[in-house]
Amino acid sequence: MMKAAFSLLLLLLPLSTALGKYIPKTGKRIPQTLSRGWGDQLIWGQTYEEALYWARSRNKPLMVIFHLEDCPHSKALKKVFADNSEIQKSLDEDFVVLNLVYETTDKHLSPDGQYVPRVIFVDPSMTVRADIIGRYSNRMYAYEPSDIDILLENMTKAKKLLKSEL
Amino acid sequence: MMKAAFSLLLLLLPLSTALGKYIPKTGKRIPQTLSRGWGDQLIWGQTYEEALYWARSRNKPLMVIFHLEDCPHSKALKKVFADNSEIQKSLDEDFVVLNLVYETTDKHLSPDGQYVPRVIFVDPSMTVRADIIGRYSNRMYAYEPSDIDILLENMTKAKKLLKSEL
Repeated sequence: MMKAAFSLLLLLLPLSTALGKYIPKTGKRIPQTLSRGWGDQLIWGQTYEEALYWARSRNKPLMVIFHLEDCPHSKALKKVFADNSEIQKSLDEDFVVLNLVYETTDKHLSPDGQYVPRVIFVDPSMTVRADIIGRYSNRMYAYEPSDIDILLENMTKAKKLLKSEL
Repeated sequence: MMKAAFSLLLLLLPLSTALGKYIPKTGKRIPQTLSRGWGDQLIWGQTYEEALYWARSRNKPLMVIFHLEDCPHSKALKKVFADNSEIQKSLDEDFVVLNLVYETTDKHLSPDGQYVPRVIFVDPSMTVRADIIGRYSNRMYAYEPSDIDILLENMTKAKKLLKSEL
Protein backbone atom coordinates (compact mmCIF):
# COMPACT_ATOMS: atom_id res chain seq x y z
CA MET A 1 0.00 0.00 0.00
CA MET A 2 2.80 2.38 0.96
CA LYS A 3 4.61 1.43 -2.21
CA ALA A 4 1.52 2.06 -4.31
CA ALA A 5 1.05 5.45 -2.73
CA PHE A 6 4.68 6.28 -3.41
CA SER A 7 4.39 5.24 -7.06
CA LEU A 8 1.30 7.39 -7.37
CA LEU A 9 3.30 10.28 -5.98
CA LEU A 10 6.03 9.71 -8.54
CA LEU A 11 3.38 9.69 -11.26
CA LEU A 12 1.77 12.88 -10.03
CA LEU A 13 5.00 14.79 -9.54
CA PRO A 14 5.93 15.39 -13.18
CA LEU A 15 2.25 15.95 -13.99
CA SER A 16 1.95 18.77 -11.49
CA THR A 17 5.11 20.30 -12.94
CA ALA A 18 3.70 20.05 -16.44
CA LEU A 19 0.49 21.67 -15.25
CA GLY A 20 2.83 24.50 -14.70
CA LYS A 21 3.37 26.10 -11.34
CA TYR A 22 6.03 28.64 -12.23
CA ILE A 23 9.33 28.34 -10.39
CA PRO A 24 12.00 31.00 -10.92
CA LYS A 25 15.36 29.93 -12.36
CA THR A 26 17.02 31.01 -9.13
CA GLY A 27 14.85 28.57 -7.16
CA LYS A 28 11.63 28.65 -5.23
CA ARG A 29 11.04 31.77 -3.15
CA ILE A 30 9.33 32.17 0.21
CA PRO A 31 6.19 34.26 -0.39
CA GLN A 32 6.53 37.83 0.94
CA THR A 33 4.28 38.65 3.89
CA LEU A 34 2.54 41.93 4.62
CA SER A 35 3.84 41.74 8.19
CA ARG A 36 7.48 41.70 7.01
CA GLY A 37 8.31 40.20 10.41
CA TRP A 38 6.61 42.85 12.59
CA GLY A 39 3.92 40.42 13.77
CA ASP A 40 2.66 37.57 11.63
CA GLN A 41 -0.56 37.30 13.63
CA LEU A 42 -1.65 40.88 13.03
CA ILE A 43 -3.87 41.96 10.17
CA TRP A 44 -1.81 44.51 8.26
CA GLY A 45 -3.05 47.15 5.88
CA GLN A 46 -1.31 47.22 2.53
CA THR A 47 -1.53 50.91 1.71
CA TYR A 48 -1.94 54.11 3.70
CA GLU A 49 -5.31 54.72 2.02
CA GLU A 50 -6.58 51.33 3.11
CA ALA A 51 -5.26 51.68 6.66
CA LEU A 52 -6.78 55.17 7.01
CA TYR A 53 -10.12 53.82 5.86
CA TRP A 54 -9.97 51.00 8.42
CA ALA A 55 -8.96 53.42 11.20
CA ARG A 56 -11.86 55.68 10.41
CA SER A 57 -14.51 53.02 9.93
CA ARG A 58 -13.45 50.99 12.99
CA ASN A 59 -12.73 54.07 15.10
CA LYS A 60 -9.31 52.73 16.04
CA PRO A 61 -5.97 54.54 16.01
CA LEU A 62 -3.53 53.64 13.25
CA MET A 63 0.12 52.83 13.84
CA VAL A 64 2.36 53.35 10.83
CA ILE A 65 5.85 51.83 11.00
CA PHE A 66 8.41 53.08 8.49
CA HIS A 67 11.37 50.72 8.21
CA LEU A 68 13.83 49.13 5.81
CA GLU A 69 14.57 45.45 5.46
CA ASP A 70 18.35 45.93 5.50
CA CYS A 71 18.53 48.60 8.20
CA PRO A 72 20.05 47.19 11.42
CA HIS A 73 18.12 49.64 13.64
CA SER A 74 14.84 48.63 11.98
CA LYS A 75 15.70 44.96 12.38
CA ALA A 76 16.64 45.31 16.05
CA LEU A 77 13.40 47.13 16.87
CA LYS A 78 11.38 44.65 14.80
CA LYS A 79 12.67 41.69 16.78
CA VAL A 80 11.74 43.17 20.17
CA PHE A 81 8.45 44.44 18.76
CA ALA A 82 7.37 41.11 17.24
CA ASP A 83 8.35 39.16 20.35
CA ASN A 84 6.48 41.44 22.76
CA SER A 85 3.11 39.82 23.27
CA GLU A 86 1.73 42.83 25.16
CA ILE A 87 2.38 45.07 22.15
CA GLN A 88 1.10 42.47 19.71
CA LYS A 89 -2.10 41.86 21.69
CA SER A 90 -2.86 45.55 22.05
CA LEU A 91 -2.19 46.19 18.36
CA ASP A 92 -4.39 43.29 17.34
CA GLU A 93 -7.31 44.34 19.51
CA ASP A 94 -7.18 48.13 19.56
CA PHE A 95 -5.23 49.36 16.53
CA VAL A 96 -5.02 49.34 12.78
CA VAL A 97 -1.46 48.54 11.68
CA LEU A 98 0.57 49.35 8.62
CA ASN A 99 4.29 48.87 7.97
CA LEU A 100 5.91 50.52 4.98
CA VAL A 101 9.34 50.23 3.40
CA TYR A 102 8.45 53.15 1.20
CA GLU A 103 7.48 56.73 1.95
CA THR A 104 3.99 57.93 1.02
CA THR A 105 3.23 61.23 -0.68
CA ASP A 106 1.66 62.51 2.56
CA LYS A 107 4.11 64.93 4.18
CA HIS A 108 2.23 64.72 7.50
CA LEU A 109 3.74 61.29 7.99
CA SER A 110 7.25 62.74 8.16
CA PRO A 111 6.95 65.62 10.66
CA ASP A 112 10.72 65.73 11.23
CA GLY A 113 12.12 63.83 8.25
CA GLN A 114 11.99 60.50 6.47
CA TYR A 115 14.30 58.36 8.60
CA VAL A 116 13.75 54.74 9.67
CA PRO A 117 12.68 53.18 11.92
CA ARG A 118 9.90 55.68 12.60
CA VAL A 119 6.56 55.07 14.28
CA ILE A 120 3.72 57.49 13.63
CA PHE A 121 0.24 57.32 15.16
CA VAL A 122 -2.81 58.55 13.28
CA ASP A 123 -6.10 59.23 15.04
CA PRO A 124 -9.28 57.80 13.45
CA SER A 125 -10.30 61.43 12.87
CA MET A 126 -7.44 61.30 10.27
CA THR A 127 -5.19 63.54 12.36
CA VAL A 128 -1.51 62.58 12.49
CA ARG A 129 -0.57 62.48 16.19
CA ALA A 130 2.66 64.45 15.85
CA ASP A 131 2.45 64.97 19.63
CA ILE A 132 3.15 61.29 20.38
CA ILE A 133 6.93 61.12 20.37
CA GLY A 134 9.80 58.97 21.62
CA ARG A 135 12.85 60.17 23.54
CA TYR A 136 15.17 61.53 20.83
CA SER A 137 14.80 65.24 20.11
CA ASN A 138 16.51 64.98 16.72
CA ARG A 139 14.41 62.02 15.58
CA MET A 140 11.22 62.33 17.53
CA TYR A 141 9.45 59.26 16.12
CA ALA A 142 12.39 56.86 16.40
CA TYR A 143 12.55 54.05 18.95
CA GLU A 144 15.45 51.86 19.99
CA PRO A 145 14.79 48.29 21.18
CA SER A 146 15.31 49.53 24.76
CA ASP A 147 12.51 52.10 24.25
CA ILE A 148 9.83 49.45 23.89
CA ASP A 149 8.13 50.55 27.13
CA ILE A 150 7.94 54.13 25.86
CA LEU A 151 6.31 52.79 22.72
CA LEU A 152 3.79 50.90 24.86
CA GLU A 153 3.00 54.10 26.81
CA ASN A 154 2.57 55.95 23.54
CA MET A 155 0.14 53.29 22.35
CA THR A 156 -1.90 53.96 25.49
CA LYS A 157 -1.86 57.68 24.61
CA ALA A 158 -2.95 56.93 21.06
CA LYS A 159 -5.88 54.87 22.35
CA LYS A 160 -7.30 58.02 23.96
CA LEU A 161 -8.94 59.22 20.78
CA LEU A 162 -9.01 62.89 19.86
CA LYS A 163 -12.68 62.83 18.94
CA SER A 164 -14.27 59.87 20.63
CA GLU A 165 -17.76 61.02 19.61
CA LEU A 166 -17.02 59.89 16.01
CA MET B 1 17.06 8.93 24.02
CA MET B 2 13.84 9.50 22.11
CA LYS B 3 12.01 9.70 25.40
CA ALA B 4 14.50 12.19 26.77
CA ALA B 5 14.14 14.37 23.68
CA PHE B 6 10.37 14.21 24.03
CA SER B 7 10.52 15.22 27.71
CA LEU B 8 12.76 18.10 26.75
CA LEU B 9 10.19 19.17 24.18
CA LEU B 10 7.47 19.08 26.82
CA LEU B 11 9.64 21.23 29.04
CA LEU B 12 10.38 23.73 26.30
CA LEU B 13 6.80 24.01 25.11
CA PRO B 14 5.31 25.99 28.01
CA LEU B 15 8.53 28.01 28.22
CA SER B 16 8.24 29.19 24.64
CA THR B 17 4.62 30.14 25.31
CA ALA B 18 5.63 32.11 28.36
CA LEU B 19 8.28 33.88 26.30
CA GLY B 20 5.25 35.12 24.55
CA LYS B 21 4.59 34.67 20.86
CA TYR B 22 1.19 36.32 20.64
CA ILE B 23 -1.69 34.16 19.43
CA PRO B 24 -5.10 35.76 18.85
CA LYS B 25 -8.06 34.50 20.89
CA THR B 26 -9.71 33.33 17.69
CA GLY B 27 -6.72 31.08 16.95
CA LYS B 28 -3.54 31.25 14.95
CA ARG B 29 -3.79 33.03 11.60
CA ILE B 30 -2.03 32.31 8.32
CA PRO B 31 0.24 35.30 7.60
CA GLN B 32 -1.09 37.52 4.79
CA THR B 33 1.02 37.50 1.63
CA LEU B 34 1.67 40.40 -0.71
CA SER B 35 0.79 38.15 -3.65
CA ARG B 36 -2.72 37.53 -2.30
CA GLY B 37 -2.76 34.42 -4.48
CA TRP B 38 -1.82 36.10 -7.80
CA GLY B 39 1.58 34.39 -7.91
CA ASP B 40 3.50 33.45 -4.78
CA GLN B 41 6.79 33.29 -6.69
CA LEU B 42 6.64 36.88 -7.94
CA ILE B 43 8.16 39.82 -6.11
CA TRP B 44 5.26 42.17 -5.47
CA GLY B 45 5.42 45.85 -4.74
CA GLN B 46 3.47 46.94 -1.69
CA THR B 47 2.45 50.44 -2.73
CA TYR B 48 1.99 52.27 -6.02
CA GLU B 49 4.84 54.63 -5.11
CA GLU B 50 7.22 51.71 -4.57
CA ALA B 51 6.14 49.92 -7.75
CA LEU B 52 6.51 53.10 -9.83
CA TYR B 53 10.00 53.58 -8.47
CA TRP B 54 10.95 50.01 -9.37
CA ALA B 55 9.46 50.36 -12.86
CA ARG B 56 11.42 53.52 -13.46
CA SER B 57 14.72 52.37 -12.03
CA ARG B 58 14.63 48.92 -13.67
CA ASN B 59 13.13 50.23 -16.91
CA LYS B 60 10.38 47.61 -16.81
CA PRO B 61 6.66 48.07 -17.36
CA LEU B 62 4.41 47.87 -14.31
CA MET B 63 1.26 45.76 -14.14
CA VAL B 64 -1.28 46.91 -11.56
CA ILE B 65 -4.08 44.49 -10.71
CA PHE B 66 -7.08 45.89 -8.88
CA HIS B 67 -9.15 43.16 -7.28
CA LEU B 68 -11.19 42.22 -4.22
CA GLU B 69 -10.74 39.11 -2.11
CA ASP B 70 -14.46 38.31 -2.05
CA CYS B 71 -15.26 39.17 -5.68
CA PRO B 72 -16.00 36.00 -7.70
CA HIS B 73 -14.77 37.58 -10.97
CA SER B 74 -11.48 38.55 -9.32
CA LYS B 75 -11.11 35.07 -7.86
CA ALA B 76 -11.80 33.33 -11.16
CA LEU B 77 -9.24 35.47 -13.01
CA LYS B 78 -6.72 35.03 -10.21
CA LYS B 79 -6.85 31.24 -10.42
CA VAL B 80 -6.17 31.15 -14.18
CA PHE B 81 -3.57 33.91 -13.80
CA ALA B 82 -1.62 32.22 -10.99
CA ASP B 83 -1.69 28.82 -12.72
CA ASN B 84 -0.45 30.16 -16.06
CA SER B 85 3.30 29.65 -16.03
CA GLU B 86 3.80 31.67 -19.22
CA ILE B 87 2.25 34.72 -17.59
CA GLN B 88 4.08 34.15 -14.32
CA LYS B 89 7.45 33.72 -16.04
CA SER B 90 7.04 36.83 -18.16
CA LEU B 91 5.91 38.88 -15.17
CA ASP B 92 8.83 37.66 -13.10
CA GLU B 93 11.41 38.42 -15.75
CA ASP B 94 10.09 41.49 -17.56
CA PHE B 95 7.62 43.31 -15.30
CA VAL B 96 7.14 45.01 -11.99
CA VAL B 97 3.94 43.76 -10.35
CA LEU B 98 1.51 45.24 -7.87
CA ASN B 99 -1.88 43.98 -6.77
CA LEU B 100 -4.19 46.24 -4.80
CA VAL B 101 -7.47 45.66 -2.99
CA TYR B 102 -7.73 49.38 -2.51
CA GLU B 103 -7.88 52.29 -4.94
CA THR B 104 -5.04 54.81 -4.99
CA THR B 105 -5.50 58.56 -5.11
CA ASP B 106 -4.16 58.59 -8.69
CA LYS B 107 -7.10 59.05 -11.05
CA HIS B 108 -5.00 57.90 -14.02
CA LEU B 109 -5.30 54.36 -12.71
CA SER B 110 -9.06 54.37 -13.25
CA PRO B 111 -9.49 55.64 -16.84
CA ASP B 112 -13.05 54.29 -17.07
CA GLY B 113 -14.00 53.68 -13.44
CA GLN B 114 -12.99 51.83 -10.31
CA TYR B 115 -14.31 48.33 -10.98
CA VAL B 116 -12.57 45.01 -10.26
CA PRO B 117 -10.87 43.01 -11.58
CA ARG B 118 -8.99 45.62 -13.58
CA VAL B 119 -5.49 45.37 -15.05
CA ILE B 120 -3.62 48.58 -15.86
CA PHE B 121 -0.17 48.80 -17.41
CA VAL B 122 2.19 51.66 -16.61
CA ASP B 123 5.23 52.42 -18.74
CA PRO B 124 8.56 52.99 -16.94
CA SER B 125 8.31 56.58 -18.23
CA MET B 126 5.45 56.81 -15.64
CA THR B 127 2.78 56.96 -18.36
CA VAL B 128 -0.39 54.94 -17.71
CA ARG B 129 -0.94 52.81 -20.84
CA ALA B 130 -4.66 53.58 -21.20
CA ASP B 131 -4.32 52.28 -24.78
CA ILE B 132 -3.75 48.69 -23.64
CA ILE B 133 -7.27 47.34 -23.22
CA GLY B 134 -9.19 44.08 -23.08
CA ARG B 135 -12.31 43.21 -25.06
CA TYR B 136 -15.13 44.87 -23.14
CA SER B 137 -16.04 48.37 -24.30
CA ASN B 138 -17.84 49.24 -21.07
CA ARG B 139 -15.01 48.00 -18.84
CA MET B 140 -11.94 48.34 -20.96
CA TYR B 141 -9.42 47.04 -18.42
CA ALA B 142 -11.42 44.00 -17.29
CA TYR B 143 -10.46 40.43 -18.18
CA GLU B 144 -12.43 37.22 -17.81
CA PRO B 145 -10.57 33.92 -17.23
CA SER B 146 -11.18 33.09 -20.91
CA ASP B 147 -9.38 36.32 -21.91
CA ILE B 148 -6.04 35.16 -20.56
CA ASP B 149 -4.51 35.08 -24.07
CA ILE B 150 -5.57 38.68 -24.66
CA LEU B 151 -3.86 39.58 -21.41
CA LEU B 152 -0.71 37.81 -22.60
CA GLU B 153 -0.82 39.76 -25.89
CA ASN B 154 -1.26 42.97 -23.93
CA MET B 155 1.77 42.10 -21.84
CA THR B 156 3.75 41.82 -25.08
CA LYS B 157 2.48 45.29 -26.08
CA ALA B 158 3.46 46.69 -22.69
CA LYS B 159 6.97 45.30 -23.09
CA LYS B 160 7.47 47.60 -26.10
CA LEU B 161 8.37 50.60 -24.00
CA LEU B 162 7.20 54.07 -24.95
CA LYS B 163 10.60 55.65 -24.39
CA SER B 164 13.19 52.93 -24.59
CA GLU B 165 16.02 55.46 -24.48
CA LEU B 166 15.40 55.99 -20.76
